[in-house]
Amino acid sequence: MKLINGGITAARGFKAGSVHCGIKNRNKDLALIYSAVPAAAAGVFTTSRFQAAPIKVSKEHLKAGYIQAILVNSGNANSCNGRAGLEAARKLARLTALRLRINKKAVLLASTGIIGKPLPVDKIANALPQLIEQLSYDGASSAARAIMTTDTRTKQAVVKLRIRGKTVTIGAMAKGAGMISPDLATMLVFINTDLNISSSALNRALKESVANSFGLITVDGDMSTNDTVFILANGLAANPKITSAGADFYIFQKGLNRVTRFLARTIVEDAEGATKFIEITVKGGRKEGDVRQAAFKIANSPLVKIALAGSSLNWGRILASLGSSGIKFRENLVDLYLGNLKVFSRGSSLGVNKKRLKNIVSAKEVKILIDLHSGSHQVTVWTSDLTEKYVRLNK
Amino acid sequence: MKLINGGITAARGFKAGSVHCGIKNRNKDLALIYSAVPAAAAGVFTTSRFQAAPIKVSKEHLKAGYIQAILVNSGNANSCNGRAGLEAARKLARLTALRLRINKKAVLLASTGIIGKPLPVDKIANALPQLIEQLSYDGASSAARAIMTTDTRTKQAVVKLRIRGKTVTIGAMAKGAGMISPDLATMLVFINTDLNISSSALNRALKESVANSFGLITVDGDMSTNDTVFILANGLAANPKITSAGADFYIFQKGLNRVTRFLARTIVEDAEGATKFIEITVKGGRKEGDVRQAAFKIANSPLVKIALAGSSLNWGRILASLGSSGIKFRENLVDLYLGNLKVFSRGSSLGVNKKRLKNIVSAKEVKILIDLHSGSHQVTVWTSDLTEKYVRLNK
Repeated sequence: MKLINGGITAARGFKAGSVHCGIKNRNKDLALIYSAVPAAAAGVFTTSRFQAAPIKVSKEHLKAGYIQAILVNSGNANSCNGRAGLEAARKLARLTALRLRINKKAVLLASTGIIGKPLPVDKIANALPQLIEQLSYDGASSAARAIMTTDTRTKQAVVKLRIRGKTVTIGAMAKGAGMISPDLATMLVFINTDLNISSSALNRALKESVANSFGLITVDGDMSTNDTVFILANGLAANPKITSAGADFYIFQKGLNRVTRFLARTIVEDAEGATKFIEITVKGGRKEGDVRQAAFKIANSPLVKIALAGSSLNWGRILASLGSSGIKFRENLVDLYLGNLKVFSRGSSLGVNKKRLKNIVSAKEVKILIDLHSGSHQVTVWTSDLTEKYVRLNK
Repeated sequence: MKLINGGITAARGFKAGSVHCGIKNRNKDLALIYSAVPAAAAGVFTTSRFQAAPIKVSKEHLKAGYIQAILVNSGNANSCNGRAGLEAARKLARLTALRLRINKKAVLLASTGIIGKPLPVDKIANALPQLIEQLSYDGASSAARAIMTTDTRTKQAVVKLRIRGKTVTIGAMAKGAGMISPDLATMLVFINTDLNISSSALNRALKESVANSFGLITVDGDMSTNDTVFILANGLAANPKITSAGADFYIFQKGLNRVTRFLARTIVEDAEGATKFIEITVKGGRKEGDVRQAAFKIANSPLVKIALAGSSLNWGRILASLGSSGIKFRENLVDLYLGNLKVFSRGSSLGVNKKRLKNIVSAKEVKILIDLHSGSHQVTVWTSDLTEKYVRLNK
């Protein structure tokens, strides 16, 4: 399934646009996504115990059923602002709905930026008329740029599918340069499709797709209070409505996975200060939870990430991190590979060719494989290295 | 209880010494601690699933009862070396015992250095005669220096107690500049006392003391395969033998805690690249496990540690880390203090004086307090900031 050029406005009936409303000193900081007709919608959010106000309000609105607009600001997270934050978010949904002449519950919200500062509601409200005027079928890149923070490039993806003779398009955009960086970053993903599908089937497809894409990446092991993935499906492709998991559903699921996997990878590749893309597979585990715990422990180990930034041969750190992950395994069954080179076998280090190892750890993409030889569970997670630049960016 | 000058040879009957045996290119790399008479002994080790060979052998020897010597090398961890590693460790215990004319099970071993490289047994064996000749009642600092890796200074502590009219001395030394840094570091702690105490009571006192000192510090969230704490008690103070937890035991426990807390703090203060000492207290938790999980999540958050390195006002990162710690709490009950300044109260940010906040986060020592207002459990952990220098040192 090939990715094609375009973004959030690729599917029928979706417009987007953006403006600079003044939350940031310069650069665009407010985007709007709009569907010509009400769309089935679903969302996945941060599991942080602190959920930002826009998430709380969006959850209420998703329950009501159909969505027509998503208002997104960068520069302020509207998080940890208590009741005032909730009131600000509700007011913006109401004003946006009023201007677009839609129900206020048809508006979703997302914010990214600094935590604990009052959201400048008036600046956003004042910019709404101009923002709505900007809405266009060509507005994808403009919207994708307005949600960027420490991202060095826009992140967009489009696929086209055939379902029952109809062309279905999925268009998406994302931002994020760390799972968290509440100062500047956060992960936001917006997906539009013209598929005709029920909200419950859409919700199922989104959860499955997120678990196998954004759920398997980490940059720094923390989670934002604002992480959000929204999908809207407005039905304009006119395929027979999908309401359960049959053949049509799986065609869509596959297309959606293509988009989310691509965007997840792009987020890790663009991680703050990163110079390497690292894939960590832990297999042969006794439990699903074990392999996840071990893989994320290694992926979040500063010492492993720093060793890789330095193209160091010191793979002992990977084993030390595995050993301290808290999962049970028998050390004399463990194998470790870097790329296709086995460096540790059944509990003992192997004498390996240093030059070959150096070539592997010096590459832009490094694959690490651990086989616990204790069961059949397996997971692959993606992460980045940890550089002095990352420290500088976040100081 | 005042700490006094001195180290591992401060208690009666203990000698120490060190030599350069050639594992490292330069600097001393082999130390020996010796008790004139067999001593009750106890040990606490890394909970990593990969335990280095010297730990495995030491555990066997501790079971046998009485110890007279501890042989420590730096520069090579003898970890992840499989059967060959175990044989190397056993051989060194045997040779040391032979030279000292003691039982081979009276020798404990500890190693720190690179993982997965064969231990150069011959270099160590060849240096043993000279090392034993070096043993001296003045050898504390020489031994403390030989176990240093990325440490910038030796770490030693001595306290004196009165128990039943007898003077009891506890002398100790430590190394460690990260909970893990298998390349160079690891935490090793050795404690000698002339107290007369049973092995089981000694074991109890050590476990309690370690849990409240070395068990509450973190530099980078990983754990070495070699972390070791040994205590020897040779009885030469001639106090009535302590065999259970009475008044004498608690006097000793208090003195031991003074030594271990001091050394734990010193390790964090000397953490690789660190510029700040950070104390994180989480109180008002529903469970002991909850407050620990939250405090360590924050203490290990790269973004929190980097923000503190930069004396950033961005305390939102602390809440984001708390929110993603996986523990349950009600966000509208949470308070956050930096120093004595409350910045977040019952779920809302407070407008605080920026200059006052800047003074607090710019200090060499920063205290963070979170009150969950949900129960009575509390923990305090110590950590360091994360700087570009840390990345450079570990690349």
